[in-house]
Amino acid sequence: MIEQSWSKKEKAIARRAFENAYEKECKDLIEKIQKRASEAKGPPDIWRLHDFLTKRIKEIENKYDYRYSMLILVFARLMQEGWLTVDEMEGLDEDKITKIRYLVEK
Amino acid sequence: MIEQSWSKKEKAIARRAFENAYEKECKDLIEKIQKRASEAKGPPDIWRLHDFLTKRIKEIENKYDYRYSMLILVFARLMQEGWLTVDEMEGLDEDKITKIRYLVEK
Repeated sequence: MIEQSWSKKEKAIARRAFENAYEKECKDLIEKIQKRASEAKGPPDIWRLHDFLTKRIKEIENKYDYRYSMLILVFARLMQEGWLTVDEMEGLDEDKITKIRYLVEK
Repeated sequence: MIEQSWSKKEKAIARRAFENAYEKECKDLIEKIQKRASEAKGPPDIWRLHDFLTKRIKEIENKYDYRYSMLILVFARLMQEGWLTVDEMEGLDEDKITKIRYLVEK
């Protein structure tokens, strides 16, 4: 199902959408870190912040997989989580958008 | 050299000094985290903060070793780094203080 060919134009759209989502999610994570850091009172908060960061970094590293064979799944997940809008998919082949939407609604 | 016996009174002094130093160093680390977090601009800063935290946590976990066989060395290091003052050692056996001072000056 996820074997697709990507035109040059689609690759440019996909790359931009992917990078925007990454920037957005990292920006959100920075805000969360700032909040947790500003509320930290004692030693246990340091360990908690570190655990939180380790977990979030691992999630981000696993999630942002820019292989074309994975992009439909990646985009569906990013849309589900609110890091990507359907508008940013504009210009992709209709079939790809349908698949992404299908996965989002599943 | 570091084989010592610790009286009940000395153990109480050592425990308080140890905990004070730990609190002080963790407080300082929290301030450093807050500063780095507030200055974070983009994704690389997240990874840098995580690396920094991992390193500092490992250092702290290795350093704060409350075995009586290790305390002279631990206290010397904490004094060297400024987390402990000689005043907080008051009440310890003179021989122990001499050894700590010797290690600090070495």
